[in-house]
Amino acid sequence: MKTHRSLNLFSSFLGIYLMLAFGPTCSAQLFTFSKQDLIDYTAQNPFTRFADGRPKVPDDLIERAKGLSSEEVWSVLTDKKFNNQYADGFQVLHPGKTMVGRAFTVQFMPLRSDVSHVANAKAKEHGVAELDNQYAIDMLQPGDVLVVDMFGKKVDGTIVGDNLFYYVNQATHGGGLVVDGSVRDLDGIAEIDMPAYFRSVDPTPIGNVMLTGINIPIRIGNVTVMPGDLVVGDREGVYFVPPQFVQEVLDRADVVHIHDEWTKKKFAEGKYKSSEIYGSPKDPKLQQEYQEYLKQRLEELHKERAAKQSN
Amino acid sequence: MKTHRSLNLFSSFLGIYLMLAFGPTCSAQLFTFSKQDLIDYTAQNPFTRFADGRPKVPDDLIERAKGLSSEEVWSVLTDKKFNNQYADGFQVLHPGKTMVGRAFTVQFMPLRSDVSHVANAKAKEHGVAELDNQYAIDMLQPGDVLVVDMFGKKVDGTIVGDNLFYYVNQATHGGGLVVDGSVRDLDGIAEIDMPAYFRSVDPTPIGNVMLTGINIPIRIGNVTVMPGDLVVGDREGVYFVPPQFVQEVLDRADVVHIHDEWTKKKFAEGKYKSSEIYGSPKDPKLQQEYQEYLKQRLEELHKERAAKQSN
Amino acid sequence: MKTHRSLNLFSSFLGIYLMLAFGPTCSAQLFTFSKQDLIDYTAQNPFTRFADGRPKVPDDLIERAKGLSSEEVWSVLTDKKFNNQYADGFQVLHPGKTMVGRAFTVQFMPLRSDVSHVANAKAKEHGVAELDNQYAIDMLQPGDVLVVDMFGKKVDGTIVGDNLFYYVNQATHGGGLVVDGSVRDLDGIAEIDMPAYFRSVDPTPIGNVMLTGINIPIRIGNVTVMPGDLVVGDREGVYFVPPQFVQEVLDRADVVHIHDEWTKKKFAEGKYKSSEIYGSPKDPKLQQEYQEYLKQRLEELHKERAAKQSN
Amino acid sequence: MKTHRSLNLFSSFLGIYLMLAFGPTCSAQLFTFSKQDLIDYTAQNPFTRFADGRPKVPDDLIERAKGLSSEEVWSVLTDKKFNNQYADGFQVLHPGKTMVGRAFTVQFMPLRSDVSHVANAKAKEHGVAELDNQYAIDMLQPGDVLVVDMFGKKVDGTIVGDNLFYYVNQATHGGGLVVDGSVRDLDGIAEIDMPAYFRSVDPTPIGNVMLTGINIPIRIGNVTVMPGDLVVGDREGVYFVPPQFVQEVLDRADVVHIHDEWTKKKFAEGKYKSSEIYGSPKDPKLQQEYQEYLKQRLEELHKERAAKQSN
Amino acid sequence: MKTHRSLNLFSSFLGIYLMLAFGPTCSAQLFTFSKQDLIDYTAQNPFTRFADGRPKVPDDLIERAKGLSSEEVWSVLTDKKFNNQYADGFQVLHPGKTMVGRAFTVQFMPLRSDVSHVANAKAKEHGVAELDNQYAIDMLQPGDVLVVDMFGKKVDGTIVGDNLFYYVNQATHGGGLVVDGSVRDLDGIAEIDMPAYFRSVDPTPIGNVMLTGINIPIRIGNVTVMPGDLVVGDREGVYFVPPQFVQEVLDRADVVHIHDEWTKKKFAEGKYKSSEIYGSPKDPKLQQEYQEYLKQRLEELHKERAAKQSN
Amino acid sequence: MKTHRSLNLFSSFLGIYLMLAFGPTCSAQLFTFSKQDLIDYTAQNPFTRFADGRPKVPDDLIERAKGLSSEEVWSVLTDKKFNNQYADGFQVLHPGKTMVGRAFTVQFMPLRSDVSHVANAKAKEHGVAELDNQYAIDMLQPGDVLVVDMFGKKVDGTIVGDNLFYYVNQATHGGGLVVDGSVRDLDGIAEIDMPAYFRSVDPTPIGNVMLTGINIPIRIGNVTVMPGDLVVGDREGVYFVPPQFVQEVLDRADVVHIHDEWTKKKFAEGKYKSSEIYGSPKDPKLQQEYQEYLKQRLEELHKERAAKQSN
Repeated sequence: MKTHRSLNLFSSFLGIYLMLAFGPTCSAQLFTFSKQDLIDYTAQNPFTRFADGRPKVPDDLIERAKGLSSEEVWSVLTDKKFNNQYADGFQVLHPGKTMVGRAFTVQFMPLRSDVSHVANAKAKEHGVAELDNQYAIDMLQPGDVLVVDMFGKKVDGTIVGDNLFYYVNQATHGGGLVVDGSVRDLDGIAEIDMPAYFRSVDPTPIGNVMLTGINIPIRIGNVTVMPGDLVVGDREGVYFVPPQFVQEVLDRADVVHIHDEWTKKKFAEGKYKSSEIYGSPKDPKLQQEYQEYLKQRLEELHKERAAKQSN
Repeated sequence: MKTHRSLNLFSSFLGIYLMLAFGPTCSAQLFTFSKQDLIDYTAQNPFTRFADGRPKVPDDLIERAKGLSSEEVWSVLTDKKFNNQYADGFQVLHPGKTMVGRAFTVQFMPLRSDVSHVANAKAKEHGVAELDNQYAIDMLQPGDVLVVDMFGKKVDGTIVGDNLFYYVNQATHGGGLVVDGSVRDLDGIAEIDMPAYFRSVDPTPIGNVMLTGINIPIRIGNVTVMPGDLVVGDREGVYFVPPQFVQEVLDRADVVHIHDEWTKKKFAEGKYKSSEIYGSPKDPKLQQEYQEYLKQRLEELHKERAAKQSN
Repeated sequence: MKTHRSLNLFSSFLGIYLMLAFGPTCSAQLFTFSKQDLIDYTAQNPFTRFADGRPKVPDDLIERAKGLSSEEVWSVLTDKKFNNQYADGFQVLHPGKTMVGRAFTVQFMPLRSDVSHVANAKAKEHGVAELDNQYAIDMLQPGDVLVVDMFGKKVDGTIVGDNLFYYVNQATHGGGLVVDGSVRDLDGIAEIDMPAYFRSVDPTPIGNVMLTGINIPIRIGNVTVMPGDLVVGDREGVYFVPPQFVQEVLDRADVVHIHDEWTKKKFAEGKYKSSEIYGSPKDPKLQQEYQEYLKQRLEELHKERAAKQSN
Repeated sequence: MKTHRSLNLFSSFLGIYLMLAFGPTCSAQLFTFSKQDLIDYTAQNPFTRFADGRPKVPDDLIERAKGLSSEEVWSVLTDKKFNNQYADGFQVLHPGKTMVGRAFTVQFMPLRSDVSHVANAKAKEHGVAELDNQYAIDMLQPGDVLVVDMFGKKVDGTIVGDNLFYYVNQATHGGGLVVDGSVRDLDGIAEIDMPAYFRSVDPTPIGNVMLTGINIPIRIGNVTVMPGDLVVGDREGVYFVPPQFVQEVLDRADVVHIHDEWTKKKFAEGKYKSSEIYGSPKDPKLQQEYQEYLKQRLEELHKERAAKQSN
Repeated sequence: MKTHRSLNLFSSFLGIYLMLAFGPTCSAQLFTFSKQDLIDYTAQNPFTRFADGRPKVPDDLIERAKGLSSEEVWSVLTDKKFNNQYADGFQVLHPGKTMVGRAFTVQFMPLRSDVSHVANAKAKEHGVAELDNQYAIDMLQPGDVLVVDMFGKKVDGTIVGDNLFYYVNQATHGGGLVVDGSVRDLDGIAEIDMPAYFRSVDPTPIGNVMLTGINIPIRIGNVTVMPGDLVVGDREGVYFVPPQFVQEVLDRADVVHIHDEWTKKKFAEGKYKSSEIYGSPKDPKLQQEYQEYLKQRLEELHKERAAKQSN
Repeated sequence: MKTHRSLNLFSSFLGIYLMLAFGPTCSAQLFTFSKQDLIDYTAQNPFTRFADGRPKVPDDLIERAKGLSSEEVWSVLTDKKFNNQYADGFQVLHPGKTMVGRAFTVQFMPLRSDVSHVANAKAKEHGVAELDNQYAIDMLQPGDVLVVDMFGKKVDGTIVGDNLFYYVNQATHGGGLVVDGSVRDLDGIAEIDMPAYFRSVDPTPIGNVMLTGINIPIRIGNVTVMPGDLVVGDREGVYFVPPQFVQEVLDRADVVHIHDEWTKKKFAEGKYKSSEIYGSPKDPKLQQEYQEYLKQRLEELHKERAAKQSN
């Protein structure tokens, strides 16, 4: 939106020199979390990793995850005793459009000039000129969801306006945005077809904050988000799924989808009470009918996917 | 949504043995409100009743009520000094779609296992196996609106997900849902064309509560809801209309609709100030014009309805 | 406070004919919960009962409970999986003065005149003239805590002013008051030495409500309160302890008190880190010292109590 | 909506005798703010004025302002150190439809009958019969936005229902409504294509208030609104722009629009990082390209407008 | 607190030229409310007036009012249908110390520099140099309560710190302060024995506001406050009593006090149920006993007061 | 409070191996902030440091700071453009008792077992057995204030109960506690004479969280707190003063104190209007009187302090 003022507005951000670009000894970032740290703390990741160490949930699983809902994720994570992975209370930009992608995390803290001065100086030493929200946004990859801890700030807590939102959409291939803070230019943003979850909207640009970490563990509501988590957002809220549970979430969701299909089909017949069918058919004959239906539909699904992959 | 877990999740609900099924002496329900109680406390009901004693506002009046708005109900109930019949502050699933139906009330309270244990035992004695939200939902009739006191609970306070919401829609013929609590599977629910009013959404299934009454008097916000009340919901909130006032509400609404029609027609002419026309025309000639318009349109309405009924 | 207006102000309350006065078949109360119901639903009560069926936690245990804190109650109830027994968010009248007593429950609902009319008529038949908050208050016994579900109402939701608060203090021998609603005459009330927990204060007298139950199960915040529960209030909030757990709560609290005594004594010596002493001494010698201290102090306590009882 | 009751409902409003109708010496209004006062306190207005002294931002500028967003207004007003001109937290009737118009201000205060009695008597002396919200609404002009200080009131704080909303739409030619209070008949209002910003919705008609000023300075949220301010509302909130800044806001918005156009065009090419383009191109060659683009597009815009005006 | 900065901090306040000092034609104040206006709008005042037209409730009635509580005021004002005279939700500085005095009203609005510039210029013309909160505070009289509409502002909304609070205490002889805004220097303020009611506390000094009226009608919560109203504050909140009702409030409070005295005396005897005594004795003999007690105590009171006045 | 359960309750906390004990290369802590980092980011500290790198504001300045109020700190930090150093909205344990000390910071995040598992393993490697809130508390020094980021958590967010609060009091010599979270055992805590600021109180012990940092930069409300900041709390809230500003804050506070003394003395004489004296005397003679008073009192203060130090 506004053109000429951003240089000095953002000049108070911390200079940050990232380990992936300049090697592991740099510590210009207020909170350092090295590539090795990231690998150690996400050791259960069953997939490959990005060059910076982030777990890389494969593209085909991300594609499948677009059919997920919060409830299906809940079911697996609760079984695993991961009870702190869900955040809600957001304004949802496009209700009905599921958000799926890999978490790219960014943290801001309230500006404190003695601290930011030091960080800026360190960054300069490493050849980093202008360090701000754009510095982080420039690093986004296709399939990423930008997840930002802006500590709930509304005024001056606007991570993007419509121009940068447009850029994030381009860079992530429609991945998405979650910010515990605000956005600006909502009229412009609403015309862009990327999912977004934010606390509030404000006309002010970002300010009075300092960037304190990129791809470090952050907190969104009651969740500790790790870089590379699979982010799943629907009409209700956002789930952050640790990579080690992604496959199981998706496989179990297949069963749930078929179960729902069958349940609604039976309800539509109008012959049964809800308790006879849901959550599980009480009559052994119905139970068997369901099991067969489930088996057949799962097979169809698998064939469908195999066909798609071989293309 | 989730398939295999509901049995043990709901096993803590109170066993309830309903008077309509097993006669008036059963007291397995924590709060008993017998058929006779219901008849006594709704003695002013001018219509027939269901087998369980609930007043049965006739279908043709329910059909007519689909043209009502909160304001039209307000006007009659305020005249009758019934000032505690309106609740708002809900999330409205389908704004613009009016909800109309007969209140089917359900009450939950926080789980307390010594109490629920006794109730379960009593229910078993009467042959009731599994007692939970589905037990209540199985009793819904066409034209009912499910009205649930879940004491504002969000987490574990989800009266239905999309499967049961689908069933409620089937069973009530699109009647509707009001819950002082939450729902789950909002993405799925949003695709089903039944009105619903809820406080919040959460991915958890119902739990940590006990069912303490079916078709007893309950409280929703600032309203004491009686079983059989006519429930009217619009974009703003929900009115619970005692049966004895339904006819008058509808008849007065006819006048209001015609008045609005005429008022807007006059405003559209652009010749009058608002105070000359609204609430009542000041000029005697206009007043007369309005009265004639009113008379003629009422006659048309009555003929239309008579024609429809004779079909 | 106000003198002459209370008769007509309260005339809209439900007439109620209580089972203890007129036998078990009366049903003038909107929600009936007979003496037998109460006995059934509190079947685990190990103590005697009042004539109306309420469990009667003995006086000496009530006396001992005055040394309890919320944390000590929490510890036992959590072990028993009773997680819905605590309510907070109240204004506390006398912080630092522990409230202990037997729950005497009262429920109000929003006024609905067609319903209250029926209840009043039924009450009249049983010779009950004026039915209102005082009708319930007249039944209070020494050792009771008046627990009122006024559904959070502030304006017109004032269960007592200073005169009735004074009376409640007299009748319950300083038992206490918990209301999910408001009080009036706070200046006057503050001079009376009885514990009280309320949501707000308002100058209006009670009105626009109807009394719908006395000594029935009620909900206060997230708690299902049963008549006869031991009510324990401190600076933080209020616990409602089922009678079957009272003895264990008190016995375990003895240990906790002694543990705290010993822990602080050791901390005061200044020789240990907190982790060496709390929650349990790490060094075996310290552990033994603690065990001996515990044993000796428990013996002293028991002797003290025996001596007191034999007096 | 309701027909026959408005006369007595509104009879408690203050009689008001406006200076524009009866000359500058009248003081029936509780707060008087004469034509001269208005001229004095808006002395920087560069445009003509209405007969009542209100600044009249020209129609062609209002037309241009329909392309504005909150952010573009923010940018100029912040530069001018006007930091108290923005209000949000409203329910927005038609998100995506920009509201633009001249502020017509109205103030209400809580009813106090000794005060309203005096005002009514004064009004009668000046021949004003019925004084209420409609009295103010009758004065609306094409291009006005009705801005109402109803001190946040919900119940009885409904400035209009669908009939009067329809009238306001007619009278202002779709100008708009901002109320720090509520509306009623939302179902009816939602069908009318005029922008509106309100705090809440309620079925009650306006009452228990008195009209205390028309076209006086009022407060909406954190803004002192002057009559004649340019009101600009988008999805986020509402800006009240002093007339002296309107031209600059619009001119600078032209630059911002072109800048956004160019920025997104470059982002769409997929060759640049966000920091290379936004807020200002870093590469001198890109900078030059942008400057040329800007110059050319501005010229096109000016020609377009000149052509439109000469038609 | 802070010494050297107040001049420029407050320099943005509106210059105000008051009618009492410079005569009735001046209009430098944004909202003018002349001496004649004040007399007209408080025409029912039965007492003398200050030179500026404010009703002057006599000192002996103010003295008597120190025994009042909110409930006693409520009773009379409700009878008079004055339902909008009570405000609560304040932080109360000295709970237990009743505040009584005559309302001296001050209004602030959000700063808008084009408007404040004009007002300052007008003030200068009348020889008023520095116009700010101190300008208003300098006018306080013994027996006044300073009542300030700061529109709920916390940051920069601090009407006084401890120095000015000390001065207000001196000038009003301990009258009091009500502010719909904040104070600063709470530690210092807490040591000064004057009642105060405020919404919040903040370390910032007053700023970003403009003084828009002194002794004009203002709104505090749901109350329209008129200059000269009797302000009565207790632990709960603040009543603003129109002068015409002061005598009746005090006389009726005598009866209530005696009634409370007698009621508690009877309750203390332990022989009666609450419903037999309160609100009015049911037994004719008790009724008579009460009437005699009342008569005798009223006589004593009157003698006492007569004696005090003749001293 | 509770004795035997803390071991397993806390067993899910992160093992942490601190750089000061085991050297600078260890990285078992989720967020590492080495001694060198701390020195770099607090480079403006003019005082000595602790062994772990924390700035050490000298004891005599801490002693002097006990006379500070929020307003005096505000004045200097605002001049320095440090606008994000103040947090409020706490429950204040001992209003009227100023809290002063050096910030010892601790950070918790929501539990995530895959992450905590890794941290625990790393800690074990370095010989750290039990890692939890006590591990941090064991490191407290005299003069410290424990500042904890518990992200606002109430249930399970209780940093201490009365036993550990007692220990903190012993270890810090009455320093104090600030927690953006809760405490338990408030009855016990209230008897201990150490200042404390917390958001809420709950009977649950700490749980469902993991310790993620000790003496790292943390966020409390809108403040970035650095280890070693001077913490100043009064009745209103808490200031975190960077060490480089401590001397100036104290010196300026001397002037403010004397200014207040003189101002109140003049007000007490009753001869001046508030605007003649405050913020600065307007009359040159008064101005001179004040300057002489100031000079003399400053000299007295300095002598007093010199005498105290030479003792």
